Amino acid sequence: MERDEMIESQENLTEIHKEIHKMIEEGENGLVERLSNMHPVEIARVIEHLSPETKREVFDLLKTDTASEVILEVNDSSREQILDGMGEEKLTDMVEEMDSDDAADLISDLSEEMADSVLDHIPKEDAEEVQKLLEYEEDTAGGIMQAELVAVKMDSTVGWVIEHLRSTSEEIGEIHNVFVISRDNILVGSIPLSRLILAKPETVVSSIMETEFPKVTPDLDQEDVARIFKKYDLVAVPVVNGQGRLVGRITVDDVVDVMEEEASEDFYKMAGVSHHERVFDPVSKSFKMRCLWLIINLATAVLAAGVVALFQDTIQALVLLAVYMPIVAGMGGNAGTQTITITVRGLALGELTYKNANKALRKEVLLGLANGLVIGLIAALVSYWWNGNYMLGVVICLAMVVNLMIAGLSGSLIPLILKWLRIDPALASSIFVTTFTDVGGFFSFLGLAAVFMRYGLL
Amino acid sequence: MERDEMIESQENLTEIHKEIHKMIEEGENGLVERLSNMHPVEIARVIEHLSPETKREVFDLLKTDTASEVILEVNDSSREQILDGMGEEKLTDMVEEMDSDDAADLISDLSEEMADSVLDHIPKEDAEEVQKLLEYEEDTAGGIMQAELVAVKMDSTVGWVIEHLRSTSEEIGEIHNVFVISRDNILVGSIPLSRLILAKPETVVSSIMETEFPKVTPDLDQEDVARIFKKYDLVAVPVVNGQGRLVGRITVDDVVDVMEEEASEDFYKMAGVSHHERVFDPVSKSFKMRCLWLIINLATAVLAAGVVALFQDTIQALVLLAVYMPIVAGMGGNAGTQTITITVRGLALGELTYKNANKALRKEVLLGLANGLVIGLIAALVSYWWNGNYMLGVVICLAMVVNLMIAGLSGSLIPLILKWLRIDPALASSIFVTTFTDVGGFFSFLGLAAVFMRYGLL
Repeated sequence: MERDEMIESQENLTEIHKEIHKMIEEGENGLVERLSNMHPVEIARVIEHLSPETKREVFDLLKTDTASEVILEVNDSSREQILDGMGEEKLTDMVEEMDSDDAADLISDLSEEMADSVLDHIPKEDAEEVQKLLEYEEDTAGGIMQAELVAVKMDSTVGWVIEHLRSTSEEIGEIHNVFVISRDNILVGSIPLSRLILAKPETVVSSIMETEFPKVTPDLDQEDVARIFKKYDLVAVPVVNGQGRLVGRITVDDVVDVMEEEASEDFYKMAGVSHHERVFDPVSKSFKMRCLWLIINLATAVLAAGVVALFQDTIQALVLLAVYMPIVAGMGGNAGTQTITITVRGLALGELTYKNANKALRKEVLLGLANGLVIGLIAALVSYWWNGNYMLGVVICLAMVVNLMIAGLSGSLIPLILKWLRIDPALASSIFVTTFTDVGGFFSFLGLAAVFMRYGLL
Repeated sequence: MERDEMIESQENLTEIHKEIHKMIEEGENGLVERLSNMHPVEIARVIEHLSPETKREVFDLLKTDTASEVILEVNDSSREQILDGMGEEKLTDMVEEMDSDDAADLISDLSEEMADSVLDHIPKEDAEEVQKLLEYEEDTAGGIMQAELVAVKMDSTVGWVIEHLRSTSEEIGEIHNVFVISRDNILVGSIPLSRLILAKPETVVSSIMETEFPKVTPDLDQEDVARIFKKYDLVAVPVVNGQGRLVGRITVDDVVDVMEEEASEDFYKMAGVSHHERVFDPVSKSFKMRCLWLIINLATAVLAAGVVALFQDTIQALVLLAVYMPIVAGMGGNAGTQTITITVRGLALGELTYKNANKALRKEVLLGLANGLVIGLIAALVSYWWNGNYMLGVVICLAMVVNLMIAGLSGSLIPLILKWLRIDPALASSIFVTTFTDVGGFFSFLGLAAVFMRYGLL
């Protein structure tokens, strides 16, 4: 079911893509109308696949309100290309259409000169709001909040609040809560719309407001904001400064993007690719981070090769060792990756702490022992069947047990140490663990073989 | 900031954990009260760390409404342990407190006998709702929707709807939209609360309802449901059957869980661990899937070792080859993992399709060439500095270029082929790609060395 749906929508997209290409080639006839029937997200997907020049051409055909949504939906490189050389007037019109948080995001992407110019041309009040938002770090509550919200005084009546909503609803967009503030703008309460709707017009808001509800400060990391939304099943949360003054609100649609980003980020890091990298980014952009990652990996591979170099005489005496040695090292790498994945997630979810770490360590070492015995025995049987040398099988099995225990120990210990050293465990763990399992694999296998040879057992 | 916040909350949890342990040891004094002040999510985190027996003891102290939330928040293995041997009465009381979607989730975890018995004891209407929900697949819109919603007839007035909300609001929980249905239960409109609140009491709902809005069918995959929420920034979506009849609604808090799950699922699969596995799962549970994955990997490692075996004479002639051969193979594996990560994500986001695949392929092969040249040159310089054999450096560099291009080609082609064959690309790609880069690395390096030797160049 799912796959059919997905394939269908992908093929539809390719069809639309082709159709629009044809329309562009044949002149604008009908293209404007065709685009006006599409959702901004779909337009963004189509635009991403066009050449930089055509991107700008198609974008220029969009109405301002559509354009202001599309520019927020396209990927980073397309946004750069479209904004590059865009007229100040069009830019200003688009920014005026946006919520303050989106406007701040877009303006932070512009050159300083262009940003100042746009801020000069939008209404002064909006410009001030945006400028305040620009002061917060991008990945904090302040960076994702918007200034548009409904706040009323404690002595307002429900009837008055509803009249107030009527006059502001267009400007503010989705409203889920009305916030109640004291005279000096301190947040004192919150009223969900579902409660407001059931109250009588003459009721004073302070008598129906909730006073115990989650709120966040602007400097809170966006990941923690997402965790609070998830914990309390929120749709919107107010943002208050150190003095308790209401400065903005965060809605669930912005948090949804944060969640997706944060959930997959760690795993991109583990593979040494940026989570911003997309499949159709230019080669030059992908090259930088990927190459750096490979160079770091090369250093660890050379270190492991150094271990093999120590045992050249042993290999010379029995070349078969060169055949089995990558198996022992590689299986350690596979098992280590499994342990890192679980450990990094445990840290991210807050389930794994320094205080309960020894329990996780014991578990992973025990798992290494169990997996090492199973995998080692199978490998030993394969080698006996293949080469008829059962002592070689014994060496393989012992080395596999040692190396998978090294994988379990290093795979759980290294992320914890990195976190303690304030280094991102997702980014750096796999490098260190692979070094351990490569060095451990070569050393245990070739070392055991050398010892067995010395005593005439191999 | 973020880390301090996190560490603090983790340590708080450990403190609470200790405190509760002490309370349990000293008898129940104060424990009931202590628990009643905690959020169900926090209670769930504490319970997860207790022994199976203590889990049940602590759980029995919870009030029914808290217990019904905690049981939904604890991890799978804790839920099993708590439910194991729980009295039918307590279970029935808990289920009665739940929304229909949560009740269905819990009941699907019970033995058939227990499930029937619970369904017999809850009100007939609720049991019917739950039974209907149980018929849908777990990972579809039907599996995550709830039956609780507000639906009104087209000729209702706003005043009547608000009276109706007043009488049902406690039972239904968070309300974001009122759905409008025709006489035979066909969904014809939707009214956001923010619009309802601004209308006059005597207005007929059909005159203010939205008629164009997203809706989903019960068999739609939950991943597609999440995509629709993200695309349209929704808070709730109605679920309609094939005849257009309203059967349920999905709220954003359920979709948030789906998003987190789906975003990280692919990367767990890539490492051969279940995304259900948690850091403190019992060893036996983790062992099964991890071991199976390692056995499959062993098969591919043996295949690659077979390639090395073909070149035993070459290695015997120059043992140094055994030192460098894992470097070439390993770097291919690293580069291949980068390509798979980007390709699998491109497929999941719908950006990469069969029709634009050749563009992605060309990019990845080109990247392989560029990275291969850089990494190959560095490796060649290292080997020249280390062993003074510059022809060996040439062989390493050439083999590296070949293998990193193999990594780019197989890393982008294999996920596409697997998807076309309807095999999960995230799960199986890394096995196949590693096989290609191991076999390719050993074959290109040792093969080139053999050719160079034959012509007296090495």
